[in-house]
Amino acid sequence: MDSYPKSLACLVEEFEKLPGIGHKTAGRLAFHVLNSSMDDAQSFANAILNAKNKTKFCPICGNMTEDELCPICNNAKRDKSTICVVADIKDLIAMERTHEFNGVYHILGGVISPINGVGPDNIKIKELLGRLNDETHEVILATNPNVEGEATAMYISKLIKPLGVKVTRIAHGIPVGGDLEYTDEVTLTMAIDGRREI
Amino acid sequence: MDSYPKSLACLVEEFEKLPGIGHKTAGRLAFHVLNSSMDDAQSFANAILNAKNKTKFCPICGNMTEDELCPICNNAKRDKSTICVVADIKDLIAMERTHEFNGVYHILGGVISPINGVGPDNIKIKELLGRLNDETHEVILATNPNVEGEATAMYISKLIKPLGVKVTRIAHGIPVGGDLEYTDEVTLTMAIDGRREI
Repeated sequence: MDSYPKSLACLVEEFEKLPGIGHKTAGRLAFHVLNSSMDDAQSFANAILNAKNKTKFCPICGNMTEDELCPICNNAKRDKSTICVVADIKDLIAMERTHEFNGVYHILGGVISPINGVGPDNIKIKELLGRLNDETHEVILATNPNVEGEATAMYISKLIKPLGVKVTRIAHGIPVGGDLEYTDEVTLTMAIDGRREI
Repeated sequence: MDSYPKSLACLVEEFEKLPGIGHKTAGRLAFHVLNSSMDDAQSFANAILNAKNKTKFCPICGNMTEDELCPICNNAKRDKSTICVVADIKDLIAMERTHEFNGVYHILGGVISPINGVGPDNIKIKELLGRLNDETHEVILATNPNVEGEATAMYISKLIKPLGVKVTRIAHGIPVGGDLEYTDEVTLTMAIDGRREI
């Protein structure tokens, strides 16, 4: 094996635990830390502990927050009557980047996937139903357009529709900049089904 | 920008400082830390500080060490009369992986490179000359086979040869598993020049 000193070997091992980082890259990263100043190493270590210590989950939507409620649930200007349901936090961040959606979110923390042993009770569907009230005007189901995402959207819509709340699903179709020639049949079928009058 | 909480954004920023890590990867790594247990995050942070605090450089050869001398200089079984000169610690680690060399090392901490403003006084050549004594039998110059590495090797050999110490250079040629057809002319010329009787 490599003749690293013990403390450096330990750091290499820690870097290797990160996703997509192999032994060689871990070694390069560890050397970078070793060659940086003590202040830099200190602030890196602090950032790890701070992120872990300070970041909590919003009790309403499940988004990350450092305060009691997340900045979105806490924002009086956001439309609380429209709830966008997403599978995880990364999807929320992607939605927020559009700056188009002014409602609030609900993070399921996964999708229904029997093959992975995830049933309806393992994700936050009950919590979503608990949030619905007379003010709720629309629930947008924004799970991914794959088998699990579609099944989850279908399951939730069947639970919510009888309550008299409008349930919508994000549009599937050809992405902007895409090419008809290279679009798969399923996407193209969805694009035709979802056509709109102009 | 991304709607990360402040402490998470800070961690993403720290990951982005690492070589070869862009914004998206940094986000993925930060999420991994956030999703790992508090113990894991703590041991990651400790590993960074430990590596930085405990790792020193060996006053003799410049290798990394946690003790007074590095494990190689401190090893009585290593042959102190043969000194292998390398540009940096990563080269030493590569040499050690062969398990073939039983001498000691001298790390220059770089190579002579006028274009980068690195002269003979900026790397540890003086320290190398200071290490030579009556016991020194051979100095192996193992800098990389590129312009700077060759120039550095040449420079050092001219300083050491008059002292009556044997100076050798690692062999250049076709790597094992290589292919004559795809070998560049310079390497092939070196392979012919360096031919040995079998």
